[in-house]
Amino acid sequence: MKSIKRLKPLAAVVGAGRTKFGELWYKNPEELLTEAGLKAVESVEYGLMRKDLQACYFGSFLYQVTNKLALVPGYMARELGMNIPMSNTEAACGSGGSALYNACLGIRSGEYDVALVGGFEKMTDRSEKIIDDLMFAGDLHEFGAGYTFAGLYASMMARYIHDYGDGSDGKCREALALITCKNHLHAMGNEYAQFRREFSVDDVLNSPLVADPIRMLHCSPVSDGAVALVVVSPEVAKKYTDTPIYIVGSQQATDDVSICSRESLTGIKATRLAMEKVLKETGMTIGDIQVAEAHDCFTIEEIFFLEDSGFCKEGEGWKIVYDSYESFNGSKHIPYVNGNRELVVNAGGGLKADGHPVGATGVRQVYECFKQLRGEAGGNQVDTEPNVALCHNIGGTGGIATVHILMRDLSKS
Amino acid sequence: MKSIKRLKPLAAVVGAGRTKFGELWYKNPEELLTEAGLKAVESVEYGLMRKDLQACYFGSFLYQVTNKLALVPGYMARELGMNIPMSNTEAACGSGGSALYNACLGIRSGEYDVALVGGFEKMTDRSEKIIDDLMFAGDLHEFGAGYTFAGLYASMMARYIHDYGDGSDGKCREALALITCKNHLHAMGNEYAQFRREFSVDDVLNSPLVADPIRMLHCSPVSDGAVALVVVSPEVAKKYTDTPIYIVGSQQATDDVSICSRESLTGIKATRLAMEKVLKETGMTIGDIQVAEAHDCFTIEEIFFLEDSGFCKEGEGWKIVYDSYESFNGSKHIPYVNGNRELVVNAGGGLKADGHPVGATGVRQVYECFKQLRGEAGGNQVDTEPNVALCHNIGGTGGIATVHILMRDLSKS
Repeated sequence: MKSIKRLKPLAAVVGAGRTKFGELWYKNPEELLTEAGLKAVESVEYGLMRKDLQACYFGSFLYQVTNKLALVPGYMARELGMNIPMSNTEAACGSGGSALYNACLGIRSGEYDVALVGGFEKMTDRSEKIIDDLMFAGDLHEFGAGYTFAGLYASMMARYIHDYGDGSDGKCREALALITCKNHLHAMGNEYAQFRREFSVDDVLNSPLVADPIRMLHCSPVSDGAVALVVVSPEVAKKYTDTPIYIVGSQQATDDVSICSRESLTGIKATRLAMEKVLKETGMTIGDIQVAEAHDCFTIEEIFFLEDSGFCKEGEGWKIVYDSYESFNGSKHIPYVNGNRELVVNAGGGLKADGHPVGATGVRQVYECFKQLRGEAGGNQVDTEPNVALCHNIGGTGGIATVHILMRDLSKS
Repeated sequence: MKSIKRLKPLAAVVGAGRTKFGELWYKNPEELLTEAGLKAVESVEYGLMRKDLQACYFGSFLYQVTNKLALVPGYMARELGMNIPMSNTEAACGSGGSALYNACLGIRSGEYDVALVGGFEKMTDRSEKIIDDLMFAGDLHEFGAGYTFAGLYASMMARYIHDYGDGSDGKCREALALITCKNHLHAMGNEYAQFRREFSVDDVLNSPLVADPIRMLHCSPVSDGAVALVVVSPEVAKKYTDTPIYIVGSQQATDDVSICSRESLTGIKATRLAMEKVLKETGMTIGDIQVAEAHDCFTIEEIFFLEDSGFCKEGEGWKIVYDSYESFNGSKHIPYVNGNRELVVNAGGGLKADGHPVGATGVRQVYECFKQLRGEAGGNQVDTEPNVALCHNIGGTGGIATVHILMRDLSKS
């Protein structure tokens, strides 16, 4: 870890706030975002003055169709009572990560020292139409052919099982269910999580079939919620807190929106490209990462993350999951182990159990890592006092992937 | 102008391309954007290699509801065959300006030297529902109360006439029609314009009533189209062309989305704030600006621009318009004159006549200024060989305003 100490941070997180995730029918999306934003501002250790805040970066996906809402900057100018520059970025399920990515560039430009970054989604009120609307994140031809969003991931999961899991006596399918069990276990200590309830492998494999081989309990839920961060330049971070969490890597890659044109169905090219870039940017290896928020919209995607990130080889992700569960000792987190690498993935429950208010997710991941690295994650705090965390946020079936690496200030250690 | 020579540019435009504006029912939005993008790339004097392009910034408004399209980065990764970072920003009618604003920050961050900036909108296919959809750029309570988007501007126009135009023997109303006449005259030489047809004051005042006092010919049209720019860091600009156009000011401000909560109905606070900031940033005065693209979604908004920008005092914009027309000598452009200030506004026809494919507009304004400053505007080239241009792009009824100042390289002059 010595080399990491000399990294030049891109930005620093000095405050974070979030709403509970779930069915929050009593609040409009801009109110959820404001609630998270004010919590983030109030969480800043030495206070954040109104005049200090210079810009906002928001991310959301379906706010237009679900809430007849656009021009989020105008809504937030009212909610916050401010006239500062504001940007709203849409990249489907990757909207939150995309907003943070733009915020980091804004901070690095020198134009701003202090920005509020927020992600939000209000989906549950429109659940009868949401299955169609979610296909906006797929390709129109896939939609026309009858695909649902779960159907797209079912194709990928089926191909993965075919290529790598056949002949494993059902252990690959069991691993895909164990991810659900793990993430729900992880959420048990998370007071904001949408679902704090444990499931067995049998529960998962007997849950209703959504799109073969995906069953209901392989899927992340439809959720409402918002999360916000106060992101500042590294130079001013210590003005706001003694324990800033530094963003040392911020990278993004894109790929064809349609799975039909991809080189492979058993991995996400955009994740691989973004991971390569962020490891190069930070000079780290995947072994340096201690906790990770992976984009587990469906459990197969968490296995893809393990493989696309280089934590293990392609086709071996399910074995890592299976073996890690086998050797589980009964603590509140189940780390993935591969040789001398140990990685806690989705310590707060991930998209699966914490919930997936789409535009909020990429920001929620950073919230979780911020709390974990500060040792402030409460009931779901990991025991290992991690120094380095990674957030992995994708849009659609991998049309975009954004990764951020965060770390504690190690200059004193 | 001496002080301007020493300005440090933020970025440079080295290529620009656009589609015709109008009813382009035979092309999908991502195809329009690709057409504009490739034209922009091909327009780069010394060529732009595929490997040179590092990031994309797009802007659009209603693509989700009008085209069931989201995750534009995934679509454009396919269209361009690239895997680079891409961002899509929505800020209603200010989406294009917002995308460029973010691109300038991305360039300034040092992460990129070369970015493609694009704005697009595909609206005409859904014209039976578009009146409702446009109200996404207003406040939901305004929509609930029965306001249309034209209705909101009608309230502002009525208040302006009441406050400043009563007792002018109808000259204020005439001025509001003359803006239409001027912008349609300006579009006569613009081969890409949606409407190349002249109108008289009588035509405007006898056109169908939309929302009193706004008539059809006070309104910008519903349009399809896309525009793109190649934006690079100042350091590499000369590698791509001998005549880059520099972006020397880039500022943004926001305000309450609803006109009901504004301090005034006879001006746009976000414009005033953004203009103050951009003039401070560049050390310019409004008198330094020679051509301007103003956001004339309704003709009253062009008068607001004259006043909010400081070109004239509040309440006197209509007189400037009226008097400028009175002294018009019959050339192809009608400049606004106030004392020793002379300003050509919307040299290519503006939103009114060139067309208003919403997300494309903020980028189209920069396209127009880029062409004017290079002397390449063809049939609608202004005669004065301008050095400095300004683009003014707002979202909704002024929930956001973004302004950019562009200039020619004056180091040799």
